Amino acid sequence: MRSRNTATACKTGSQDTLTGVAQIPLGLAGPLKVDGEHTRGDFYVPMATTEGTLVASYNRGMRLAREAGGITVSVIDDAMQRAPVFRFANAREASVFGTWVTEHFEHIKERAEATTSVGKLRDIEQYAVSRFRYLRFNYTTGDAAGQNMVGRATEAACQWIASQYPGIDRWLLAGNMDTDKKYSRLNTLHTRGKRVVAECILPDRLLREHLRTSAEDLFMQRQISNLGALMAATNNNGAHSANGIAAVFIATGQDAANVAESSSAIVHAELTDGGDYYYSITIPSLIVATHGGGTGLATQRECLELLNCFGKGKANKLAEIIGATVLAGELSLSGAVIAGDWVTSHEAYGRNR
Amino acid sequence: MRSRNTATACKTGSQDTLTGVAQIPLGLAGPLKVDGEHTRGDFYVPMATTEGTLVASYNRGMRLAREAGGITVSVIDDAMQRAPVFRFANAREASVFGTWVTEHFEHIKERAEATTSVGKLRDIEQYAVSRFRYLRFNYTTGDAAGQNMVGRATEAACQWIASQYPGIDRWLLAGNMDTDKKYSRLNTLHTRGKRVVAECILPDRLLREHLRTSAEDLFMQRQISNLGALMAATNNNGAHSANGIAAVFIATGQDAANVAESSSAIVHAELTDGGDYYYSITIPSLIVATHGGGTGLATQRECLELLNCFGKGKANKLAEIIGATVLAGELSLSGAVIAGDWVTSHEAYGRNR
Amino acid sequence: MRSRNTATACKTGSQDTLTGVAQIPLGLAGPLKVDGEHTRGDFYVPMATTEGTLVASYNRGMRLAREAGGITVSVIDDAMQRAPVFRFANAREASVFGTWVTEHFEHIKERAEATTSVGKLRDIEQYAVSRFRYLRFNYTTGDAAGQNMVGRATEAACQWIASQYPGIDRWLLAGNMDTDKKYSRLNTLHTRGKRVVAECILPDRLLREHLRTSAEDLFMQRQISNLGALMAATNNNGAHSANGIAAVFIATGQDAANVAESSSAIVHAELTDGGDYYYSITIPSLIVATHGGGTGLATQRECLELLNCFGKGKANKLAEIIGATVLAGELSLSGAVIAGDWVTSHEAYGRNR
Amino acid sequence: MRSRNTATACKTGSQDTLTGVAQIPLGLAGPLKVDGEHTRGDFYVPMATTEGTLVASYNRGMRLAREAGGITVSVIDDAMQRAPVFRFANAREASVFGTWVTEHFEHIKERAEATTSVGKLRDIEQYAVSRFRYLRFNYTTGDAAGQNMVGRATEAACQWIASQYPGIDRWLLAGNMDTDKKYSRLNTLHTRGKRVVAECILPDRLLREHLRTSAEDLFMQRQISNLGALMAATNNNGAHSANGIAAVFIATGQDAANVAESSSAIVHAELTDGGDYYYSITIPSLIVATHGGGTGLATQRECLELLNCFGKGKANKLAEIIGATVLAGELSLSGAVIAGDWVTSHEAYGRNR
Repeated sequence: MRSRNTATACKTGSQDTLTGVAQIPLGLAGPLKVDGEHTRGDFYVPMATTEGTLVASYNRGMRLAREAGGITVSVIDDAMQRAPVFRFANAREASVFGTWVTEHFEHIKERAEATTSVGKLRDIEQYAVSRFRYLRFNYTTGDAAGQNMVGRATEAACQWIASQYPGIDRWLLAGNMDTDKKYSRLNTLHTRGKRVVAECILPDRLLREHLRTSAEDLFMQRQISNLGALMAATNNNGAHSANGIAAVFIATGQDAANVAESSSAIVHAELTDGGDYYYSITIPSLIVATHGGGTGLATQRECLELLNCFGKGKANKLAEIIGATVLAGELSLSGAVIAGDWVTSHEAYGRNR
Repeated sequence: MRSRNTATACKTGSQDTLTGVAQIPLGLAGPLKVDGEHTRGDFYVPMATTEGTLVASYNRGMRLAREAGGITVSVIDDAMQRAPVFRFANAREASVFGTWVTEHFEHIKERAEATTSVGKLRDIEQYAVSRFRYLRFNYTTGDAAGQNMVGRATEAACQWIASQYPGIDRWLLAGNMDTDKKYSRLNTLHTRGKRVVAECILPDRLLREHLRTSAEDLFMQRQISNLGALMAATNNNGAHSANGIAAVFIATGQDAANVAESSSAIVHAELTDGGDYYYSITIPSLIVATHGGGTGLATQRECLELLNCFGKGKANKLAEIIGATVLAGELSLSGAVIAGDWVTSHEAYGRNR
Repeated sequence: MRSRNTATACKTGSQDTLTGVAQIPLGLAGPLKVDGEHTRGDFYVPMATTEGTLVASYNRGMRLAREAGGITVSVIDDAMQRAPVFRFANAREASVFGTWVTEHFEHIKERAEATTSVGKLRDIEQYAVSRFRYLRFNYTTGDAAGQNMVGRATEAACQWIASQYPGIDRWLLAGNMDTDKKYSRLNTLHTRGKRVVAECILPDRLLREHLRTSAEDLFMQRQISNLGALMAATNNNGAHSANGIAAVFIATGQDAANVAESSSAIVHAELTDGGDYYYSITIPSLIVATHGGGTGLATQRECLELLNCFGKGKANKLAEIIGATVLAGELSLSGAVIAGDWVTSHEAYGRNR
Repeated sequence: MRSRNTATACKTGSQDTLTGVAQIPLGLAGPLKVDGEHTRGDFYVPMATTEGTLVASYNRGMRLAREAGGITVSVIDDAMQRAPVFRFANAREASVFGTWVTEHFEHIKERAEATTSVGKLRDIEQYAVSRFRYLRFNYTTGDAAGQNMVGRATEAACQWIASQYPGIDRWLLAGNMDTDKKYSRLNTLHTRGKRVVAECILPDRLLREHLRTSAEDLFMQRQISNLGALMAATNNNGAHSANGIAAVFIATGQDAANVAESSSAIVHAELTDGGDYYYSITIPSLIVATHGGGTGLATQRECLELLNCFGKGKANKLAEIIGATVLAGELSLSGAVIAGDWVTSHEAYGRNR
C-alpha cells in the first residue's frame, strides 16, 4: 500500500529533504464558463480537498453562472513585493533618503533587474514612520509567483543603495510591509500577486430555479453579511473564498501557505434596475504561478494541463479561472445560507458529528 | 503512472464526487521538543509542502529550540462558533430580544445540544448594531473541528428561538460574525478553534551559534517587524506561520482552507534581564481536528499516528505540536532575515528564477 | 476687548492652571424631534463650531427627519473601562490567573466599588496574549464620563489582586485595551461609554422634496460609501458624525478629546418594501456626561439646561439627543453629496480659498 | 453676565447662523523647546480644555523634553484629498478608465487648479474594486486645511472627466476613500493633511528625576501598550494624543471635528545603546490651518499670534509645534502610568467622583 510506505520512508529518510507524499482527494467541478481577458471557454476545475461537499457546492454555483452567461473576470493589477526597511538617525534624514530613492529609481531598477531574466521592477512605494523608511519594491514576475525572485533582486538593489548612500544606520531586507504569507490591509489596497475581479449578473429567475431564493433575498443577505464582516473586521466580507482557493491551489501546485493572503476578498453586490443580481468579488492578493514551485510536480502539472495553464504565459489565465471559480462558490454558499439548506447539505455528505 | 490515472479518472467520473488524488511532497522536521499541557516529548513533525526549503528551515528552528530546552506551549482557550443574526423593527426591539436570549440561555443550550453528542454550548456573545442582533454561539466540539456540528446545533437553537420569540422580522444562520474561513479581529480577540501560545527563552549564546545573530539583533528586528505590521495592518505581526500551518494541515488531514484564519498570529518578544531572548507566538484561531474530516484518509491518518494524535482526546495535543512547530519556524526565518542568508538559503534549494 | 485680556492673562499666570478662555461660535440647530427611551420631544441643539455651514446643514437634516416623524434612538449598552495588564512567567500561569480572577470577581468588585459612590463594576473581560492577561474592567458610572472614577476603582482592585495573587511578575494599570481617547475595534465591538442607535424611516417623497434626491439614489450612494470605507479601513462608514459630535461636545462641556473615539460609527441603510429609506447609525463609544468635568462651566451648563440635560440622571438623555443629532447630519450631507450641491453649499458660506 | 446672554441670544436668533459663543478654559503650557524644519525655539502653547489636569501634565512633559535638549520634529508629507468614485459596466471598463486617467493627468490637473489660486494637484492615487474606480486626488493647499478647496477643484476635474470619457455609468464626488473626519488605515499609510514625526532622546537620568521611572521601565511599558493596541486594533498605539490635539485645536481655531483623524498616531520607542530612551510619534493625518476657517476668530487668532503662527506660510510651523506638544504629553502620561501616580495626579485636580 502506497501511503504506508510513504510515511515510513519519511521517518527513516533525511529530515531536510522531501521524500514522501501526502495524498489529497481530487475532484473536478464544472464546466465553468469563463469570459476573461486571457481566456474564454468552459473548464473543468480540479479541486483537491478533504471536504466532501465542496466540489458539489462549487458545481452548483458553476451551473448557475453558466446558465447566466458565464463569469466575466479580469486581472486588473499585478505586482509582487519585497519591502526592505532603512533606519536613520532621525525622521528628517529618513525623509531625505526617500527623495534620493525616488531620484535614483533607474539605478536601483538596474541593479534589481540584473539578478533576474524575468522580474521587472515596476515602482517603489515609500512608507514613512518614525526614523524608518520602508520601501515597497513592486515587481512583475512573469509566470512565477516570484517571492524568491523579488527577494534576490531587492537584496541586490539594497546592497547597492547601502554602498551609495551614507547615513543609513541599519537596514533589513524585510520589515513586514510586503506582506508575505499574511493578509494585510496594505495588500488589499495595493495588490500582491494578481488583483482579480470576477463578476456575474444573475437573473432573478435563475436564482429561484437553482438556489431556491431570489435576487432580493440574496441582496438582503449580502447586506447583513457586509455589516457582520465590518463589525468583525474580517479580511473578507464574502462567504468562503478560502475553500475554492485552497482546493485549486493544492490541485495545481500552488503554495498552500499563500491561502493566508490569497483568501482575502471584497465582495460587492447590487440589485439591477431589472431586479436581477449583480455579484462581484475582488481578490486583491491572489498568488499564482504556472511555472516554478510545485507546478512541475506530476499530478499538479496534469491539473494545470487540464486547464491549459501549464508553463509560460499562463499565469493570468490561471488567475482568471480561479477568480471565476471563487465567484461560483460564493453564489452557491450564499444561496444555501439563505435557502436554509446549508446545514442539511453538509449533512448528506457530512463527516463530523 | 499513478498520477496520470488520477486526473483522468476525475475527468471521466462524476464531477460532484471526489475520485482522484493530488500528491504533495511530504517531509519530516524534528525532533521538536514540546513541553505542553497535553503532551511532552520529542516529535518528528510531518509537513506536506511544495516549497523545497521549508522543512529544512523548520528543522533549523527546532534544533535551536531543542537546545534551548524546548518549547512551552498551552491551549488557553477553545471555542467553535456559528453566529446567526436576527433583524427587528428597530434597535430597541433588538435590544429587548438580547435580554430574552440571556434569560433563556439554558433552554437554548438544551435545544442546541440535543443535536450532538459531543458539542457543548459554552456561551452566547451578543453584538448589537442597527436593528440587528448578532449572536455568537461558542461551543466546544471535542476532537472535531466542528464547523458542521455547530451549524446544525445553532440552527436547531434558532428554530426554537424563532418559534418562541415574536417580533423577529427575519433571521439568518450566518452573518459573517463567526467568521468561518476568514481572518477577523473578532476571532483574534475571542478565539476560534484553539487559542495556542507557544513560548521559548533562547540564550544569546545559542542564537549566535545557530542563527549567526544575537538576542539584541533579533529583538531589534522584531521591533521593526512589529512596526511594519502595524502600518500594513496585517493579520499577523510575525514571520510566516502560514507556512508551517499549511504544511502540517495538509499532512494531517486538516482542512487547508482554514489556513485563512489559522495563520493569524500575534508575536511578542522580550529581551530578558540576562540578555537572552524570550519569544512567543499566540495563535488565536487555530482550527484542528484529530477526528472527522480528512483525518481518516490514509496518509493523513498515518501522519497523525506518527504524532500519536489520531482519534479521540488528541485535538489539544495536536494544537500544541502545531503551535510549537510554528514557533520554531518563526525563529528560523527571523534568524535568516537578520543574518542576511534568507535570499541565499532559498537559492541553494530554489526553484524560481 | 475681552479676548485680548484672556490670552494676556494666560501668559502672565501660572502655566499649570487654567486662567483664560477661548471662545467658539455657538449656534442652535433644530428643532430636532427625538423619540428616545429617556426622552421624547423637540429640542434646539447647541453646536459650537468654527465651520460656518455646519449648523445650517444639521438644521436641514433635522427638518427632514422631523417631517418623517422624528428619530428613534436608544442607548443599548453602557460601560466605562480601565484595562490593567498582568505579566507572568509564561502563558500557562497567565491562564491560571485568569481563572482565579473569574472566581474572585465578587471580591474584586467590592474593592473597586469601595472607592466610589457611583461606579459599579459590571464585569471583567479577559484577553490573553503571550504571557500577559489583559483585564478589561467594565463599569457603569452614572452621569459622569467616569474615566477617572474607573481608574481609581481599578487601581484599588489591582492592588488587592496583587496582594492576594502570588506569581504576578508585573502589572500596569493601563495597557491600551481600554482604549481611552482612541478609536479601537474593541470598543466598537464591546462599547465604551454609551452605545447609541439612532434610526429613521424617510419617505421617498420627503427625500425628493428636502434633499432633491430619492431613496434609491441615497441607497446607491450608501453602498458605494460602504465599499470605500471598507477599502480604506475607516473607523466610520458614515458621512461625518465627528462634525456634530465635536460641536455638541464643545457646547455642552464634554471633553473634546473624546471625539477621537466617540466619532466612530457604523451606518446601515435599507430600502424598505415600500421604497422608502431606512437609515440608522450605531455609535458604539459615545462618551457623555451631564455631571462633572466641563459640564459645570457657565456657558456649557446653560447649553445643557437648554436641553434639560444638566445634572444627575440625564446622561442617557443627552446621549440620545446627540445620537439623533448625528443622524440628522448624516442625512443632510448624504443628500448634499448625491444632489451635487455639497461643493456649492460650502461656497455660499465658505471661508477657505 | 456674558455667558447667559450668549445662550439666550442663540435661542431667539436665527438657527442657521452662528450668533452666540461657547467659552472653554484656556491655559498655556511650556516653554516647549522645538527643533523643527520650519521653526526653532521655545514656545508657550495655548491649550483650551475642560480637563483640569491636562495643562499641568503637558507642562511636565515639556520640561523633561526641554532638559533633554528639545524635541526634533519634521513635516515629512503634506496632502489633502477628495476621492471621487466612478462606476462602469464592469471591472474591465473601470480598469481601462484608470489608464485613461493616468494618461490625462495634466489635463485633469489643469481643470482642478483652475478653481483655486492656492491648491496644487500633486497626484491621483487609484483604487480598484468591483466595477468601481476610486480616484484619490492629493493636493497641497498652502496654509488652509483645504477640505473645501479640494472639493471644489475635484468637482471641476470630475465634470471635465465626465464630459470627456464615455462609458461612465455614474460618479460621485466622495465615496469614503478621502477619508474626511474619519480615521482610516488609508490615511495612516498615505497621509491626510500633514504627516508629522516628533522625536526625542531622553537620558535615563532625566527620566528618573522627572518621571520617577527609568528608560528600561518606560520601554517595557511601551511594549505592553503596543501589544494591547495591536490586540484592540486602535487608531493609535500611543497614550493620549487626542488630548493635546483637541486642546491646541480649540485654542487656535482649528476644526475640532478633525480630532477624529488627527488623533491617529504611531508611536515607536527604542532603548539606545547608551541605555537612554528614544521616543517618537508619527502623526499621519494632522489637519492644521493658519489661514481660513476659525483661525481668524478673535481669541483663536491671538493664540496663533502667540506662537507666531497666524496667516500665510505658517501651517508647517504650527504642525511642528503641535507634533512636539503631543510628544511631550506622551512622555508625561507614560511616566505617570508607570510610576503609578496617574490616578493620584488626577485626584489632586480631579472632578469626577
